[in-house]
This record gives sequence, C-alpha cells and structure tokens, in this order.
Amino acid sequence: MDEERLLEELKTVFPQRPEVAEGPGDDAAAIRLPGTGRLLLTAVDQVVAGVHVLPGEAPERIAGKLVRRNVSDIAAMGGAPAYAMLTAAMNPLSQEFLTAFHRGVQNACGEYGICVVGGDVSSLPEPGAVFTLSLFGYSEPGTLKLRRFARPGDLLCGTGCYGRSFESGHHLNFRPRLREGLFLGKSEAVHAMMDVSDGLLKDARRMALESGLSLNFDCGRIPLRAGASVEDALCDGEDYELICAVAPEGAEALCSAFPNLTRMGCFTDGVPGAVSGIPVLNKKGFDHFHEDT
Amino acid sequence: MDEERLLEELKTVFPQRPEVAEGPGDDAAAIRLPGTGRLLLTAVDQVVAGVHVLPGEAPERIAGKLVRRNVSDIAAMGGAPAYAMLTAAMNPLSQEFLTAFHRGVQNACGEYGICVVGGDVSSLPEPGAVFTLSLFGYSEPGTLKLRRFARPGDLLCGTGCYGRSFESGHHLNFRPRLREGLFLGKSEAVHAMMDVSDGLLKDARRMALESGLSLNFDCGRIPLRAGASVEDALCDGEDYELICAVAPEGAEALCSAFPNLTRMGCFTDGVPGAVSGIPVLNKKGFDHFHEDT
Repeated sequence: MDEERLLEELKTVFPQRPEVAEGPGDDAAAIRLPGTGRLLLTAVDQVVAGVHVLPGEAPERIAGKLVRRNVSDIAAMGGAPAYAMLTAAMNPLSQEFLTAFHRGVQNACGEYGICVVGGDVSSLPEPGAVFTLSLFGYSEPGTLKLRRFARPGDLLCGTGCYGRSFESGHHLNFRPRLREGLFLGKSEAVHAMMDVSDGLLKDARRMALESGLSLNFDCGRIPLRAGASVEDALCDGEDYELICAVAPEGAEALCSAFPNLTRMGCFTDGVPGAVSGIPVLNKKGFDHFHEDT
Repeated sequence: MDEERLLEELKTVFPQRPEVAEGPGDDAAAIRLPGTGRLLLTAVDQVVAGVHVLPGEAPERIAGKLVRRNVSDIAAMGGAPAYAMLTAAMNPLSQEFLTAFHRGVQNACGEYGICVVGGDVSSLPEPGAVFTLSLFGYSEPGTLKLRRFARPGDLLCGTGCYGRSFESGHHLNFRPRLREGLFLGKSEAVHAMMDVSDGLLKDARRMALESGLSLNFDCGRIPLRAGASVEDALCDGEDYELICAVAPEGAEALCSAFPNLTRMGCFTDGVPGAVSGIPVLNKKGFDHFHEDT
C-alpha cells in the first residue's frame, strides 16, 4: 500500500467540477460557493483504535484528537471551521462510551466554534473502534495557500517544534494552529501551506515535489521537542504544526509577528522532491497506513 | 444500545447555531448559506462489512450501496446531492480492493452528478472493513419537509414497495428516490418527508411520534415486494423508499403525478407515536445497530 500512489489514483478516478477550487490531495477540499466569493472547505479524518490511538484510550481523548486533527487540516487551508458530521463504528457498542465520546467531541468542538450537525453510529462485527469526523468551514477568497504553490527561493518556515509526538503525549493534547493559519493565509508573502502529520521531512518533501522544486533543509534550525533528535524531528509524525513556503523578503516580518514560526530551509529549482541538508536517517516518515504492503 | 435514546442524547449534547435550520435527527442536516437563500444539506452514512453488507461483498457493490444510502437521505430532504467525502478503514488494506471500490464510488456518484472532493484511508488492527461517505447538497428555500411536520388528517403516502429487501438484493441495487424527493419537496401538499431504512413501521411511527400524532395504517394498501408478507413490509428494513405526510386534498393529484406513490394510512390526533391498524407482529423493525444491548 503506497500513500502517494493512492493519492494519484484518487486524482485520476474522481473528476472535479469547475467550481471545485481544490479536490483530493491537499489538507482539505475547497469549493466556491454560489452567490458569494467564499470558499467552502471540507476535510475528513479518522481515528482508529490501535492505529491512531492506543486500544482502550479514554473516549474524551479519542474525541479531542479526532476534532483537532481535522481543525489542523482546515487551519492549513487558511480557513475557520464551522460544522461537523460524526460517525462511530464500535464493538462493543456501549452507550456509556458513546456518551463520554460525544461530550468529548462537543467540548473540543466548542473551543473552535464548531457545531456538530449530524452523525451515524453502527456496530462492528469484531472488536474494534473506528471514528470519523467530516469538518467543514469557510475561507475568504485569496487565502488558499495550496501545497503546490511554493516558488523557487521561498523559505520553508514552520510553527512550533518537532519530534517525539507520541512519546510526549503531544499527539493527544496539541493545539491546532488555527490562529496562525488564518494569519498566514492572509499574508501575501506566504505562497504554500500544509499541516505536518506524517513527519516534517515527508510532508515538506511533498510540498517541494508538488511544487516541482527541490528542498534544502537547515537542520540546525529545526526546533526540537524535549528529548527529540534531529532525526526524530524529521521522521516522527503527528506534530500537527503548519509549514509554509514564504517569500524571503516577507519572512522576517512574519517570524517577528509569530515568535513560534521558524525558518528551517529553502525551496530551490532542481529535481522535484529532491532533499538536501539532512543527515543519514534510520527512521522513515510516519505512515498512517501502519503497514507497507 | 437504544437508537432513540442515542438520538435524544445527540440533540442535547450538541447545541445548534441559529443558521442551522435542522441539526441531528432528520435524514440530513440543513444549514442556511450566508449570502444566498439556499440550504446546504449534509448527510453521513456508514457501510460496515458484516453489518450492512455480507463479509466479502464485492467492492463495487459496497461502493454503490454507500453512495445510494446517502443519496436517499438527501432526497428525503427534497434536495440534490453535489459533493462527497469518503473514508475507508480496512484490514487487509489492499490496493486492488481500494481501486475497485473507488471506481465503484465514482460510478455511483457519476449517476447523480456527485463530485468526490476528498477522503481518507486507514488500516485496521483487526480484520474488517468500515466505509463512510459524507454527502453535501443543496436545497431551495421552502422545500424542507422535516419528519416532525406531519399534521392531523395528513395521509401517509410512500413510494415503491416494501419488505424482503435483503433477500431480494434490493438493498444493493435500489434506486434512491431523488427525482421524487425533488418533486415532493416542492409540493405544498407535502408537509413531512423521510426515507425508510429501518422498516416502514418503525420509520412511519417516528414521523408520527416526532409530529406529536398517532398513525393509523391501512395495511391492505401497502405495496409488497415479491414474496413479502404485510409483516415483512412493515418490519424488514433497507427499503430506501420515501414516505411523506400529505394534506388529503392534495394526495390524489400527487398520486396521479407519481404512479408509484401509494396512500397507506393517515395521521390523527392522539397519543404521540401510537400505531393502529396493524396485525400482531413477530418481527421487530430492522436495527442497524445489529444488537440490542
């Protein structure tokens, strides 16, 4: 199972309509709303027990992660979330668990002004738990910074720090970069933006590849989470930070406005997706597929 | 696990915003779009292997059912579908299966003008398969016929025929009543509408209960699928037909316009949700939870 190949397939299999500004492949889809200049953004993510959270994780924590993963996707599109649809498929199907889970979803959604408008619950024939959240929101025209929009000479900048997300518990209690995303989305200096969920190296490389550029990391500048090595920062996943490609003349002002925004490399003309400036790595990027078949 | 109790809980736990014309509890949610008079409709449904389809069912058939179940929900709101978001969680996670599944989704979506704009794929730690589709669409102002809008004296009318959906294969190859839903949504004589997925008795009773009315069935008039008894028609699920509450003076014209629309009972003042005119039943309504804990 190859994530890149799957994505290519999705782009081929599902033709898009003219009003779809962005279909499969970025953090969220973007649809031009009739009668307004605004874009409807839609993202969907899953949390599977035993894949994204440990089996037996508390319902409130599963709920929080499910909501915040999706908010991070909307933030990466420079938008604000508004409404959500929820599904749960479980065995055993426990009313007590669902009550706590739904309260957890509402608590997390309440923080971001999200209204849960519907959902579905099903049993599973075998023990397990699969939760999905479809999140939709709005963004203003001109704020869409797709990952393929990086330009030669742009600096790679990122919010927060990287590595050891699972070990530190960050993957459960992170704060999606909604405020930063709204600000960066409005900045003319920012050309491309995405969230980092599969590891800094893998995701920044995707931005370079889809923009037809090479990427040179300045690894000494990558902010490390407590106890993380450069390799951890490059390869561990689930950071839920935003990275962006910034015109060099605008980077200083942006980094002053957001002290947690750091310059970590630059995009250059060259072989698309080629990465330089990194050490020899033993880890590989985090793969949400959890297997490599 | 009690579906009605769960729904009551969802309505309590998730507060709605003023622009949400309908939140959890009907076939789809309805949100007033800023700057236009239109409503954004959103529905979500799951297909779980071993619950909604037999384990080992072909990917194209799973895909078709997943899409059409959701289209039926949008049809029941008098709307037209437009965009979809897709998730799959599987073990084993097979590229071959996913390719066939995605083609099946596109084939079914193509029939209804639906554009798949995004999705997510995950592995499962144990063998199994869970698929979800979130479907978005639009409806015009005034076409929303919520299930709680039935009035005393309204006739219960329904499209198509009922019973033995699983045995006949109808649950996999049905045609959602999109054209009928659009027409009935625009008709002033139609007050309430919903789709029948949990069985005619259970769903029609819901319409009565939520409208604060009793329901008197005229069982001799219920159209039966080949080989189905009245009890099958009342209690089997997965018919994916539309039922509606129609002002008596408008019913004749509607039934002439749609020969597959049949009058099957009437709503009256009385104990909310009380049902008369049905035989003693051994079956109970189909329950998608698949268990009664």
